[in-house]
Amino acid sequence: MASEGLKMYELMEKLFPICRSITGEGVRETLRDIQEHIPLEVKEVPSGTEVFDWTIPREWNINDAYVKNDQGEKIIDFQQNNLHVMGYSVPVDKRVTREELEEHLYSLPDQPNAIPYVTSYYKERWGFCIRHGDRTKLTDREYYVKIDSSLENGSLTYGELIIPGEQREEVFLSTYICHPSMANNELSGPVLLSHLVKWLRTKKRKYTYRIVFVPETIGALTYLSRNLEEMKENIIAGFNITCVGDDLEYSFLPSRYGNTLSDRVALKIMEDSDISFKKYSFLERGSDERQYCSPGIDLPIASIMRTKYWEYPEYHTSLDNLDFVSPNGLQGAFDIYKACIELIEQNEKFMVNCLGEPQLGKRGLYPTISKKGSANRVRDILNVLTYADGTNDLIDISYITGLPVSDVLDIVYDLYNKNLLIVKEREDIASFDFQLN
Amino acid sequence: MASEGLKMYELMEKLFPICRSITGEGVRETLRDIQEHIPLEVKEVPSGTEVFDWTIPREWNINDAYVKNDQGEKIIDFQQNNLHVMGYSVPVDKRVTREELEEHLYSLPDQPNAIPYVTSYYKERWGFCIRHGDRTKLTDREYYVKIDSSLENGSLTYGELIIPGEQREEVFLSTYICHPSMANNELSGPVLLSHLVKWLRTKKRKYTYRIVFVPETIGALTYLSRNLEEMKENIIAGFNITCVGDDLEYSFLPSRYGNTLSDRVALKIMEDSDISFKKYSFLERGSDERQYCSPGIDLPIASIMRTKYWEYPEYHTSLDNLDFVSPNGLQGAFDIYKACIELIEQNEKFMVNCLGEPQLGKRGLYPTISKKGSANRVRDILNVLTYADGTNDLIDISYITGLPVSDVLDIVYDLYNKNLLIVKEREDIASFDFQLN
Amino acid sequence: MASEGLKMYELMEKLFPICRSITGEGVRETLRDIQEHIPLEVKEVPSGTEVFDWTIPREWNINDAYVKNDQGEKIIDFQQNNLHVMGYSVPVDKRVTREELEEHLYSLPDQPNAIPYVTSYYKERWGFCIRHGDRTKLTDREYYVKIDSSLENGSLTYGELIIPGEQREEVFLSTYICHPSMANNELSGPVLLSHLVKWLRTKKRKYTYRIVFVPETIGALTYLSRNLEEMKENIIAGFNITCVGDDLEYSFLPSRYGNTLSDRVALKIMEDSDISFKKYSFLERGSDERQYCSPGIDLPIASIMRTKYWEYPEYHTSLDNLDFVSPNGLQGAFDIYKACIELIEQNEKFMVNCLGEPQLGKRGLYPTISKKGSANRVRDILNVLTYADGTNDLIDISYITGLPVSDVLDIVYDLYNKNLLIVKEREDIASFDFQLN
Repeated sequence: MASEGLKMYELMEKLFPICRSITGEGVRETLRDIQEHIPLEVKEVPSGTEVFDWTIPREWNINDAYVKNDQGEKIIDFQQNNLHVMGYSVPVDKRVTREELEEHLYSLPDQPNAIPYVTSYYKERWGFCIRHGDRTKLTDREYYVKIDSSLENGSLTYGELIIPGEQREEVFLSTYICHPSMANNELSGPVLLSHLVKWLRTKKRKYTYRIVFVPETIGALTYLSRNLEEMKENIIAGFNITCVGDDLEYSFLPSRYGNTLSDRVALKIMEDSDISFKKYSFLERGSDERQYCSPGIDLPIASIMRTKYWEYPEYHTSLDNLDFVSPNGLQGAFDIYKACIELIEQNEKFMVNCLGEPQLGKRGLYPTISKKGSANRVRDILNVLTYADGTNDLIDISYITGLPVSDVLDIVYDLYNKNLLIVKEREDIASFDFQLN
Repeated sequence: MASEGLKMYELMEKLFPICRSITGEGVRETLRDIQEHIPLEVKEVPSGTEVFDWTIPREWNINDAYVKNDQGEKIIDFQQNNLHVMGYSVPVDKRVTREELEEHLYSLPDQPNAIPYVTSYYKERWGFCIRHGDRTKLTDREYYVKIDSSLENGSLTYGELIIPGEQREEVFLSTYICHPSMANNELSGPVLLSHLVKWLRTKKRKYTYRIVFVPETIGALTYLSRNLEEMKENIIAGFNITCVGDDLEYSFLPSRYGNTLSDRVALKIMEDSDISFKKYSFLERGSDERQYCSPGIDLPIASIMRTKYWEYPEYHTSLDNLDFVSPNGLQGAFDIYKACIELIEQNEKFMVNCLGEPQLGKRGLYPTISKKGSANRVRDILNVLTYADGTNDLIDISYITGLPVSDVLDIVYDLYNKNLLIVKEREDIASFDFQLN
Repeated sequence: MASEGLKMYELMEKLFPICRSITGEGVRETLRDIQEHIPLEVKEVPSGTEVFDWTIPREWNINDAYVKNDQGEKIIDFQQNNLHVMGYSVPVDKRVTREELEEHLYSLPDQPNAIPYVTSYYKERWGFCIRHGDRTKLTDREYYVKIDSSLENGSLTYGELIIPGEQREEVFLSTYICHPSMANNELSGPVLLSHLVKWLRTKKRKYTYRIVFVPETIGALTYLSRNLEEMKENIIAGFNITCVGDDLEYSFLPSRYGNTLSDRVALKIMEDSDISFKKYSFLERGSDERQYCSPGIDLPIASIMRTKYWEYPEYHTSLDNLDFVSPNGLQGAFDIYKACIELIEQNEKFMVNCLGEPQLGKRGLYPTISKKGSANRVRDILNVLTYADGTNDLIDISYITGLPVSDVLDIVYDLYNKNLLIVKEREDIASFDFQLN
C-alpha cells in the first residue's frame, strides 16, 4: 500500500539528523543524499549576490555548541538536538551570568517539552533554544556558553533538475531544504519530491518538469532571479511541496487569485478523491508561493498539504519529528500529487469530430435494441461527447457532466481510439498516452 | 377554454392508430393527415444516403403480424395493437418452440399490463412485445409466428414548411413522427405543432418560421445534413416539441449551455405564468436537441414539455394512450408555446429617445398635481424608461423591473405610440405589431 | 463631536422659513444665504427655455394667502406656514361656497395633524393645504379666499461652484433648493453640501469639484442641458445629497446599474463604518438621480441618505420640521460623505515596485528574528503588497484582504514612503497626499 511511503520515510530518517540552514554544509549534505535517488544538479551562488530586493547572506556553518553549568555539565547540547542553537548564531565563547544567558534563551511556556525553532538570518545574534521545562530549572549564577560556528563569505546552495518532455511547456515543482531536524515541515517535502521525480523519470512526458530544492525564501528568490524569463514563458502549472508527511488532514492553498491550471487540477483531484480537505485562502500563505505568486512573478503555483504549517502545535518545534509523520501520511500526499501530474498531462480540450451525435451503435457503444431504459447506459458517453466541443478541457467536462475525471478519461480514451474525438489543436497523438504506461 | 385543445385531441385520435416507424407508409399517411391542416411539403431521402455519421436505413413496412398457439388462436396480434411488433422486425413465418419464442419476446415484469415499445433499427431482428401478464400464461410447446413485413430500399420521409416573415431570421420548430400508437410521446408533439402553425399563418410575422416533422434522430440528422448552413445562419431561436399532452406537470429542458434566446424566452414565459415547472439539466436530454444542440451544429433549441419523457411510467408503453393525454393538457402547452412565439416576435432592445426623463405629465402619463404618494402610479413607466437604454431587451427589462413581460409590453406600446421610445436599430415600425392582431 | 452638525443646523434654522419653489425669490434668497458660506455663482435661465423634453415654466412668487370664514377670521394662513398654499397656485380673490372651497383643499386623513406639501407646477390651479383635523371643522356656508401670487415670465435660478483640483476629472455633488419649509427633505441637503464645500476648499484636491444647488427635476434637467458634454467627459463620481438630517437610519441608493466608482466608494465606506444601513434598489429612486442616471446621461451618481424620502411618515408634510432633524443626524451624514470624498481622492491602483517579496526586515517592517508566530505581525503588510499588483485599487485591496480601507491606506502610505509601492500610471506623487492635510 504505502510502498513509496516507506521509501520516503527511510530517506527522511537519513536526512533528519543533518543541521540545515539557508546556507552551509547541511544543505550540501542533504542534496548529496538526494542525488543518490535523482540526478540533481547542485548550484552555488556567492554570498553578496543581489537577488531582487535581497542579498545572499554570508554562509553559516556550525561544528558544536553548548551551555555548561557551574559543575561543567552540558545543560544545553547541540549534539543532542540541532534545534538547540538559534540558526545563524554568531560564534561565542565566554562565561555569562544567568541574567545575561536568559537574554539569549528562547523557549515556549505553552509547550514546555518542545525546543522551539528560531533563526536570525539577517541580524547578527547568538542564542540557544531550550525546553521551557528545562529553562525554569536554571539556578546557577554563571554559565559557560560556546558556539563554534562561522559566518563567512561562501555561497547559497540549491539543487535543480530539468526533466525534458515532448513540449517546452513546463510543470514546476519546488520544495525547500533549509530547516534543521524537523520532519513534516520540512523534510516531508524533499523526500516526497525526490520520489515523485523518480516516478516521473520512468514516464513518457508531454511536459518538461522543472524541479528545485531550494532554501526557503532567499533560495526561491535566488532561483527566480536567475531563471525568471524562461519560467514565466514556459511554466503552465506547479506546486510548492511542503508539510506532506502527517496523517491528520489534507489542505489546499490556492495561487494568488486561485484561478490557474494548478488550482483547477488540485481541486478536481481532491474533490474526486474520498478525502476531505480544508481550503485555505491565499491570505494564509506562508511558504515559497509568497515569491512564486508575487506581482510580476505571477507563476501558477498552488500547494496541496497534509496539515498546513502553523495549524499543528508541533510546527517549528522539536516535536515535529519522525513520530509526527508516517509512511502512510507521505503516501497519501504522494498519491494526490501523482494524480495531479497525471491530470495535467492528460488535460486537453477535446473535440468531437463529426456533426450530430455519432452513431455509437455501429461501434458497439450503444445497444442495438432500443427499449425502455436502454438509453441510460450510454448517457455518460453522450454527455462527454456533447461537451467535447473544443471549449472544455477534461476538468470542465468532469464538472459539467458530474463524472469523476477518471470516468471522463475512460470514455475519452474509448472515443479517441474509435476516432470520434480529437485533441483540439494538437496533432501529437503520442502525447496523450501518459496514463497508459 | 380548450378550443384548440379539443381540435388537437381530435387530430390525435385520427393519427393514433397509424403504425409509424422511422421510415415507411405510416409516416407518409401521418403527414398526409397533417397536410389537411397545414401545407407541409413532404420530402423523401433515399435509403443508403449518408447523413453525417449515419446512413439512412432501408424502408420498413408491415402488413400484419401475429403469434398463434397450438389451437391456431392468435395470442399476439398486430391488428389489436401495433406495439406488439418490435419496430423494424424482419419477416418471419415459421413454427418455433416456446423456448425459441421466448428469446424474441419483450415484456415489462414491473408493468405487467403494459405492452412495451421496442425497436431494432440498425440490427436485423424480429420480435414481439407483450404484456408480461400474458407472457406468463404461455404454456404450449410450439407456436406459429408470422411477421408480414418488408425491409427494402426506399426512403426516409419528412415534412417541412417554411412560413416567410419580414425578416430572414428564423424560428425553428421541430417535432417527430416515428412512433406507433402512443399519445404523449409522440403524437402530442405533431398535433400541437400543427395547430401552432395554423395560428402562426394567420399572424403578421417579423420572423420566418422553419417547421419540420421528422423521424426522431435519423430524421433530424437527415434534415440537418441537408440544411445546416442556412439553419446556422438564420435560426435565432427554436423548440423541439414533444410530450405536451398530459395534465400533470410542466417541464423545461434547456439548450446545451442554457444561454440562448430560446432559454431566456421559455423561462420568462413560464416564470410569468401561474404554472410551476421542473427545470431539467441538458444532461437529461433525450430527443432531437441531442442533434440540434450538438457541437458544430449549435442551434439554440430548448424544450417546454408537460411531463418529460422517461419521467412517467406510461412512457414508451401501450399505457401512453389517448387516456393519458387530454384537450386541457394540450391546451396548456399550446398556450405557453404561443406566448413564447409572441415574446420572440416582440422582443427587441428599446431606447428612450430623449435625454433626461421625458415629461410624462404633458402626455397624460403623470399626475399634474404632485402630492404625497402620487408618484407611485408612474413608477413602472419610469422604471421601464430608465432601463430602455438600448442595452436591454424586453426580457431583461422584465427581470430588472420585476414586472411581468406583459406589463412591460403594455408600457412599451404606450411609450412607443407616444414617440418616447424607439426600437434599437430597426426602422420597421410595422414589425413591432405582432401582439396587436 | 457634532461641531459641523451644529453649524449645519444653524444654517438650516435660517433657511427654514423661506418659501421656496422651483422658481422665484425664495430660491434666490436661499442661495444668497448660502453665498455667505461658499462663493456660489447664481445663474438665471429664462422661462420658456427648452431643456430636453421640458420647458422652464413661468416664475412663481407669492406675497400672502389666506382663507377667511364668515366672521372674517383667517382660518388658513400662509403667514403661519408656507405649506398652507399649494405650490404654483394661481392668484385668487373671491368668495366661495364651502363646497367650492373643498375642491381646492388638500389634507391627509391618516395624518390629521400634518399639513401636506402639494404642488401643481405644470397645470394652473389654486389650492390650500390644511391639517385634516382642521378641515373637518369647516362648517360655514361661504369663505373668502385670497392668494396674492404671481405667475409671470421670469427665470429659473440655480447656484453653481467649480472648485478646481489638480486633475480635470470631476466629482459632482448636487442638492436641491425648491421645497418650502421642510427640514430633512430638503434643507438637510443644501446645508450639508454647503459645509462639505467649506471643508473641501481647505483641502489639496486631486480632482475638480462641480457643485450645484438646483430646483429638483427641472433644475437638474436645466443644468444638464447646459453642461452635459463636459459633465459626461469629466465626472468620475458623484452624489445627489438629500435627506441627510434625521437620526434614524442610514440608506444607500445606487446608480442605475450600481457599478460605478460612486457605488463602490459609498458601500465600502458604509461597510467599514459601524453603522448599519439599508440598501435600496435603483427602482426605488425618487430624486435627481432620475435625471443624472437616465439613459444617454449616464452619470455615476449615487445617494447616501439618513432615512430615505418616502420611508418616514413626516415626509412631505409640515411634520418634516426642525424637530425631525438634529445636529447629530447631520453630522453622521457629513462624516460619511467626507470619508467618501477622501476615498475618491485616495483611491488609486498601486503596484509593488520590486519582484518577489521585498525584504521588509531591512526596512524595519519585519521582525529580524524568526520564531513561531512572529510572521503574523507583518501579514497585513504582505497581503497588501501581494494584491498591489497594478490591477486592484484601494477598494479592491480592502475587500480582498478583509482590512478596512483605512488600514490598507496606513500600510500603503508606509510602503509608499519606503519606496516599495508606486501609484499605477501616475507620476504626480503630490496628488496622493489628500488625507495628510
